[in-house]
Amino acid sequence: MASIKIADLPTGPPADLTKEEVEKEVKKRTERIAKLHQQMVAENKNSLLIVLQGMDGSGKDGATRNVFGQCAPYGVRTHSFKKPTDEEFGHDFLWRVHKQAPLKGEIMIFNRSHYEDILIQRVHGWISEERVQKRMAAINAFEELMQFDNNTIVLKFFLHISKDQQLLELQQRLDDPKKHWKHNAGDWKEREYWDQYMRCYEDVLNWSTIPWHVVPVDKRWYRDYLITDIVLQAMEGLNMQYPPLKE
Amino acid sequence: MASIKIADLPTGPPADLTKEEVEKEVKKRTERIAKLHQQMVAENKNSLLIVLQGMDGSGKDGATRNVFGQCAPYGVRTHSFKKPTDEEFGHDFLWRVHKQAPLKGEIMIFNRSHYEDILIQRVHGWISEERVQKRMAAINAFEELMQFDNNTIVLKFFLHISKDQQLLELQQRLDDPKKHWKHNAGDWKEREYWDQYMRCYEDVLNWSTIPWHVVPVDKRWYRDYLITDIVLQAMEGLNMQYPPLKE
Repeated sequence: MASIKIADLPTGPPADLTKEEVEKEVKKRTERIAKLHQQMVAENKNSLLIVLQGMDGSGKDGATRNVFGQCAPYGVRTHSFKKPTDEEFGHDFLWRVHKQAPLKGEIMIFNRSHYEDILIQRVHGWISEERVQKRMAAINAFEELMQFDNNTIVLKFFLHISKDQQLLELQQRLDDPKKHWKHNAGDWKEREYWDQYMRCYEDVLNWSTIPWHVVPVDKRWYRDYLITDIVLQAMEGLNMQYPPLKE
Repeated sequence: MASIKIADLPTGPPADLTKEEVEKEVKKRTERIAKLHQQMVAENKNSLLIVLQGMDGSGKDGATRNVFGQCAPYGVRTHSFKKPTDEEFGHDFLWRVHKQAPLKGEIMIFNRSHYEDILIQRVHGWISEERVQKRMAAINAFEELMQFDNNTIVLKFFLHISKDQQLLELQQRLDDPKKHWKHNAGDWKEREYWDQYMRCYEDVLNWSTIPWHVVPVDKRWYRDYLITDIVLQAMEGLNMQYPPLKE
């Protein structure tokens, strides 16, 4: 298999597509996702795990809101993985992640994920390369487990933003009072490690058994256009049925 | 590697050993285990997972009591895996098990375990052989994860009882008022599947990456003699130190 090179992948939409053209389509799709989600809850058989990874400002929250915002709140959950607590540090790195695995019938959205344990930790040299390899193998086994043993579809999105666009996004958090709450001095610090992050992301994309979807996110409307398409295809593929009346 | 055949393995002690000879030794060992456990808690670095598997009446509770009964209750936990709840059934089979993984500094004792999901479920044909294979691979990955990522020593004991001895044990639960609480009609039912259980146990012993200790348990004193020896060797091997005073 040819290996993925992040530098070759676009961060913006194709030239022949405009925001106006896709907006209606995205709206239709999100409504359809909400309908299928309702069926997923009713059928109580399959589940969907959405993994959102990307640099700060790549639009993980926005993607969550725009793609799943129409779904009924029961049966959709999100979990944001922050710095581990003492109790979490006292266990293997997947312990806190496995607890958040989706229940049958549920859509679970990970805002960051177990991949941070081979991204931020690797970029800063907090773990050995040997441990990175072992963790990657453990991640592959973990994702396959959810897939074969709980009918979980694992959809992983790398939100691919350009370094220039990130600058604009982070700056907006300083300039716009409504975005002040999103500002975090640490984000500017991590930005200095951009190239190291891209190298580590590249390995993640190449080493994963379950493939990633690389989403150009410099234009947010194109991000939503792509993600809704992939989510919808996966959900349609389940051929879900409302269960018959229980006697 | 030569494969393990359960039928070749003794269920009783060697002829040259008597209860009187080993009793003092077991007592010394359990005191030493309690001391090392105290150090393990203090050091907060390693953990120990004890997995006890065996047919009904093979003495899982007794082993827990006799081997770890001297340890201070903080830092020792046991979990008994029963029929999964609805929420547990709504996840992959390792979800409820991973939650119970030992915290650093802790001894965790599993009374039954994730292996039931390829034992009772396989004996009764509730899962396909393909799923058995996949679950076994997932178990190996899971145990290795705790080992490499959380310094967990995984010690697995198959408490090997003879079919005749099991009859005596189950009968005692009917005859002795102090043991009535242990009686369960289901145990007699499962006894009818003895040969199938032995075949499934044999596969478990042969397919596991982390090796099992097969413990002859027809004489309970020999069970304790063997288990204390194995636990002690593992704990001594950690070369634990009381941490220095924090400034």
